Amino acid sequence: MNFCPSCGAKLARRIPEGDHLPRFVCDGCQTIHYENPKLIAGCVPESGGRILLCRRAIEPRRGYWTVPAGFMENGETLQQAAARECHEEALARVGIEDPCAIVHVLHAHQVHVLFRATLADGSFGVGVESLEVALYDERDIPWPEIAFPSIEFTLRRYFEDRARGRRELHFTTFERPPRGG
Amino acid sequence: MNFCPSCGAKLARRIPEGDHLPRFVCDGCQTIHYENPKLIAGCVPESGGRILLCRRAIEPRRGYWTVPAGFMENGETLQQAAARECHEEALARVGIEDPCAIVHVLHAHQVHVLFRATLADGSFGVGVESLEVALYDERDIPWPEIAFPSIEFTLRRYFEDRARGRRELHFTTFERPPRGG
Repeated sequence: MNFCPSCGAKLARRIPEGDHLPRFVCDGCQTIHYENPKLIAGCVPESGGRILLCRRAIEPRRGYWTVPAGFMENGETLQQAAARECHEEALARVGIEDPCAIVHVLHAHQVHVLFRATLADGSFGVGVESLEVALYDERDIPWPEIAFPSIEFTLRRYFEDRARGRRELHFTTFERPPRGG
Repeated sequence: MNFCPSCGAKLARRIPEGDHLPRFVCDGCQTIHYENPKLIAGCVPESGGRILLCRRAIEPRRGYWTVPAGFMENGETLQQAAARECHEEALARVGIEDPCAIVHVLHAHQVHVLFRATLADGSFGVGVESLEVALYDERDIPWPEIAFPSIEFTLRRYFEDRARGRRELHFTTFERPPRGG
């Protein structure tokens, strides 16, 4: 962040009076520009015991597999965002249920919220951000090809809970880029 | 948002190719500037059955009561943010427990996440953003003076769950500014 989005003046980086962290401050219009974590919403869509996965057509992690997830937009709920992403990436309608995982990805300034979900009618397709979409049995999940640690964490907790007949909300935190990223 | 934070050029507002929503787009450096909901983290601190409330010294809703809560920072977890806000606003150390409520405040582009918590040693004080800090029994909560609908929602669910000996995670959505705001 170099220039003030409000007035276009060059920004300074300093700790404002009464604050405790450095911020981008505009000496032109006196605006303080805060930076905050972004929300990613997604779901684990299940159909007949199998899980819907998408192979990513876009970076980062193009060619790797994920559950449908993406940046939450202003004006929608987490559940609406999760359902929208599933429709965009897998052309599938889902019923969003309870949250399965909340993952802090500290280095990326992101919080991932993943819900349990059920495919509405079993139908799906390949959205523009996907190379391939498929239903996987638990034993066939391509673990080494899962795109992100937050998704692997979510899927593992999902299957553990399912095996034990429970539904919990699991938290975890990742602090550095995975796999040499 | 009028000017590009990256290069300082005037921004345009349009739907980028392959997107479905209008964004702020820089024709100078080609950057698309997305706007996303911000996270507010807070907690309901309990001590000996009573709840710690803060009377706000800052706008919005100066003079009204709230539980400790505020904008999440980059590089921290939701639980760390909730504990930090409690220390800043009420000079109190808390043990953060499970989440009690997630509230979508659509018109404000905010998601509020409120945890159950326990005061570590019963001590607290008045932080710089507070006029007054006090422990309240459930029957004494100043309901008409609670600052925000998300906080009233959280407190009501908290007390209901406590009365029934359960701990659930409650979702809700507010769609318009409350009280003529």
